[in-house]
Amino acid sequence: MSGNGGLRIGIFVFDGAEELDVVGPFEVFAEWGSHSQVRPTVSTFSWDGSGVRLAKGLRILPAHGADDVGPLHVLVYPGGLGTRPLLAEPGHLEWLRQIRRQTPIMASVCTGALPLAAAGLLAGRPATTHHEHYDELTDLDPSVLVDTEARYVDDGDVVTSAGVSAGIDMALHLVERLETTAVARSVRNAIQHPPTALGAPGPGTGPGI
Amino acid sequence: MSGNGGLRIGIFVFDGAEELDVVGPFEVFAEWGSHSQVRPTVSTFSWDGSGVRLAKGLRILPAHGADDVGPLHVLVYPGGLGTRPLLAEPGHLEWLRQIRRQTPIMASVCTGALPLAAAGLLAGRPATTHHEHYDELTDLDPSVLVDTEARYVDDGDVVTSAGVSAGIDMALHLVERLETTAVARSVRNAIQHPPTALGAPGPGTGPGI
Repeated sequence: MSGNGGLRIGIFVFDGAEELDVVGPFEVFAEWGSHSQVRPTVSTFSWDGSGVRLAKGLRILPAHGADDVGPLHVLVYPGGLGTRPLLAEPGHLEWLRQIRRQTPIMASVCTGALPLAAAGLLAGRPATTHHEHYDELTDLDPSVLVDTEARYVDDGDVVTSAGVSAGIDMALHLVERLETTAVARSVRNAIQHPPTALGAPGPGTGPGI
Repeated sequence: MSGNGGLRIGIFVFDGAEELDVVGPFEVFAEWGSHSQVRPTVSTFSWDGSGVRLAKGLRILPAHGADDVGPLHVLVYPGGLGTRPLLAEPGHLEWLRQIRRQTPIMASVCTGALPLAAAGLLAGRPATTHHEHYDELTDLDPSVLVDTEARYVDDGDVVTSAGVSAGIDMALHLVERLETTAVARSVRNAIQHPPTALGAPGPGTGPGI
């Protein structure tokens, strides 16, 4: 599926995406590459491949555009105020539904759950988002089963996390699920993320690492 | 000291700086701006103002160069493999010593402590770094009092943190110290950083938030 045959992760970036929503999972997945037998690679991509200005002003240049990022095993959708214009764009939601059909795992951080809900991808499913935005999620789709306790919710092919720094814990959980607890522990150790920060996992998750 | 008279924080970025070392503190300090009476602003700057490629491939465009970032109240020096060429450059170390004389707080994340040590700024002082690099720190300056337990060490005008994600906790500690515990709690709540992640503070620190 990729150049090196390994597991491919793409993080979608856009104007107004929250900085740590993007970089927390990026750090975890990139570090994973140094500890792994499944040869994961992580890259960022924006809609048209051009640079973006994140929610608090950090400017980044993504590696790809949506047209050339290629097939992914995991797509990470970050949150931030920049999600609001996107969830109101029918063309963007159709793109999300199309990507969803060919991507084994769709993952969101923080209010990244909102565009997934607007696209109908969370209908009738357990999910979470930033703790100040639960109502916004159910306004978009009242059938979403909002988990207000979990730091992340793993519902198999859709994984959502709570706000901002919770994306780090969700990413470590995915490393555990997609490889092993031992590898996830190595990654956590390398980035000195405290075990106590892993919080309560959502339904469908294994023991915390 | 700045355009809005507020507290100015600069994060030095360079090729090979570790992604989360940069963005963890950036997120905390930028969020602080929404909760604060001291009007903090945070910006990134590279040596010459041009874009940098971080340790795991993320490319960012800083807001400034070292020549135009202006006076700072806090300078944050991230870690990453890119610190090694810098700590071997006498001109860079001289710049650090000069900046140190005019900057009230010098803060490092992870192996960002190494260039500070190479510049002589940690001589005889308590400090910490990434847990796999304690020896490298004392090789550079045997007089550094390495704290192998603390998540961050606040020694007044020099504050160092342990590896990667510990920069988030150090930044929250600085918000507490430079404003109030209540404001630091608001920032922590906004980024959903768990209280349990704050870890054991080093000498000279107040109660954990």
